[in-house]
Amino acid sequence: MSTALKSVRSIAPLLDRILVQRVKPEAKTAGGIFLPESSVKELNEAKVLAVGPGAMNKDGQRIAPSVQPGDKVLIPQFGGSPIKVGEEEYSLFRDHELLAKINE
Amino acid sequence: MSTALKSVRSIAPLLDRILVQRVKPEAKTAGGIFLPESSVKELNEAKVLAVGPGAMNKDGQRIAPSVQPGDKVLIPQFGGSPIKVGEEEYSLFRDHELLAKINE
Amino acid sequence: MSTALKSVRSIAPLLDRILVQRVKPEAKTAGGIFLPESSVKELNEAKVLAVGPGAMNKDGQRIAPSVQPGDKVLIPQFGGSPIKVGEEEYSLFRDHELLAKINE
Amino acid sequence: MSTALKSVRSIAPLLDRILVQRVKPEAKTAGGIFLPESSVKELNEAKVLAVGPGAMNKDGQRIAPSVQPGDKVLIPQFGGSPIKVGEEEYSLFRDHELLAKINE
Amino acid sequence: MSTALKSVRSIAPLLDRILVQRVKPEAKTAGGIFLPESSVKELNEAKVLAVGPGAMNKDGQRIAPSVQPGDKVLIPQFGGSPIKVGEEEYSLFRDHELLAKINE
Amino acid sequence: MSTALKSVRSIAPLLDRILVQRVKPEAKTAGGIFLPESSVKELNEAKVLAVGPGAMNKDGQRIAPSVQPGDKVLIPQFGGSPIKVGEEEYSLFRDHELLAKINE
Amino acid sequence: MSTALKSVRSIAPLLDRILVQRVKPEAKTAGGIFLPESSVKELNEAKVLAVGPGAMNKDGQRIAPSVQPGDKVLIPQFGGSPIKVGEEEYSLFRDHELLAKINE
Repeated sequence: MSTALKSVRSIAPLLDRILVQRVKPEAKTAGGIFLPESSVKELNEAKVLAVGPGAMNKDGQRIAPSVQPGDKVLIPQFGGSPIKVGEEEYSLFRDHELLAKINE
Repeated sequence: MSTALKSVRSIAPLLDRILVQRVKPEAKTAGGIFLPESSVKELNEAKVLAVGPGAMNKDGQRIAPSVQPGDKVLIPQFGGSPIKVGEEEYSLFRDHELLAKINE
Repeated sequence: MSTALKSVRSIAPLLDRILVQRVKPEAKTAGGIFLPESSVKELNEAKVLAVGPGAMNKDGQRIAPSVQPGDKVLIPQFGGSPIKVGEEEYSLFRDHELLAKINE
Repeated sequence: MSTALKSVRSIAPLLDRILVQRVKPEAKTAGGIFLPESSVKELNEAKVLAVGPGAMNKDGQRIAPSVQPGDKVLIPQFGGSPIKVGEEEYSLFRDHELLAKINE
Repeated sequence: MSTALKSVRSIAPLLDRILVQRVKPEAKTAGGIFLPESSVKELNEAKVLAVGPGAMNKDGQRIAPSVQPGDKVLIPQFGGSPIKVGEEEYSLFRDHELLAKINE
Repeated sequence: MSTALKSVRSIAPLLDRILVQRVKPEAKTAGGIFLPESSVKELNEAKVLAVGPGAMNKDGQRIAPSVQPGDKVLIPQFGGSPIKVGEEEYSLFRDHELLAKINE
Repeated sequence: MSTALKSVRSIAPLLDRILVQRVKPEAKTAGGIFLPESSVKELNEAKVLAVGPGAMNKDGQRIAPSVQPGDKVLIPQFGGSPIKVGEEEYSLFRDHELLAKINE
């Protein structure tokens, strides 16, 4: 999805949506040798940039999201809404679609 | 969908529906050069024109919509009901289908 | 759907159903020139003729319909049950399927 | 569906089911001329013959059906369970499938 | 479905399941003439042989089944689990799938 | 599904799952004559080997399973998760999928 | 799914997700003879490595997961999200997808 936004910071997710950016795979080996692009796999790790206020339960109360901005998370292989801001790609997931938090 | 309406202002969305108009992409570059139409991508940004009173929860109370007229929002790539008023195109989404608010 | 009814007034919608009649597009231009039939598009505007008492919520109470007889509404492109009374066509929608009220 | 019943009166619908019989179209015009069978359309009007006690809500209370025996109703174009008793055909609908009551 | 059961009486339906046996159509006319098999239609009438204790509602209470052993019922054209005991065929339906009780 | 388990006794079903083993059809007639394999039909009878603690209802309380180890049950024609332990085959069903208890 | 994680220990499952690793089949017989790879079947047994805090019920309370780290479980034949950390493969299941605990 295209946008004409100047900064991803202007995106405030609604309800239980979580804005993330995929971690980019290293383009060179630990020893400093550049890898051919075909051998670099897309990772399912992402960094949380912004979280919505949470979906509302039946009593009209917000369900707190499971993650916070700055968290690193495992994202599912499929799903999510891709968003392009400038040359960078981001995704919006629903809170319950995120698989795990990554503690480093 | 066709209408014979004279103004989009006469549309008052029902329940949790949100009336938006897509932001049109710039047809020329920052430097003032006109872009060929094929290189102008449709944006997923939209401006909220009108919001319904909100869906009703099980206790018969309205769930307040997440956005207000004048808000800028990210809309999903698919879905929504297209409406044509005169030569302009608009869309109706349900409140929970909107992805994010855009704070500028 | 065919009926042998003499008048559409005899139809009393059940539960949350709303009886509407589509607004017919003008067959001639503002200047009085008749339009060829092929250039006349079916409109998604309709007039509410009768409303059901409303669906029942879990506590056995009626959910009041969102519209009243005489209201003009935007109807979705698909769905609804078509009914023919004499030579005229009508439709029955569920209350939540109506997109917007039209305030003129 | 075939039955060996002697009378349709022996059928007592269960839960929210409504037993109806379609109104048969007039086989001759108002002026008394018989119509060729191909020009006689099946009608979506039906007479209510028997109603079930109503489905049960979550609190174990019966939801009263919307129609009573003797009512004339609009039935949907599809759905319902056809039942044959002798040479006559009947249908069982769920209460919420009936579109409208017909007040004559 | 095959079983090695000696008697259908040993089947005690679980939850809201109802064990029925289809009524067999008369193989001869009222006048005593045997009908060719092709003209004998399968009937949608069945006799209730055993009923389960009922499904449980959200409060953990049993929902009493709508029918009792010995009742005659109208069964739907499709659905149900067929069971064979010896040479006889039976079916298990869920209580809410039964269409009507037959009062003779 | 393959396992490297030494005994089926080590399987403790979770939630509302029920571990059963299909009853094997007699391979010879009552008179002692061995039946050709093609005439031996798979039976839909099974013996309950172990039951889970029950699914949890909305109030966080366990819903007691309908059957106990040692019970004989009718299992549906389709569904269930097959498990192989050594050369023997077992199945896991959810409690509500079991059709009936068999009282012998 | 690929990750650049250094250790599977950094994965903290969210909500009701359970991180497991499949038990690897023995590559040699009890007598010490190596088996050809084609005769080694993938097992449906797995070891629980980490469990999420549990999904939330309608009252906003966590539903405790059915298993604990260190438990051995039967996993379903399909489903789950595969994750690769280094050369090892892991899976994330939802708590209710696990079939049984294995008591050794």
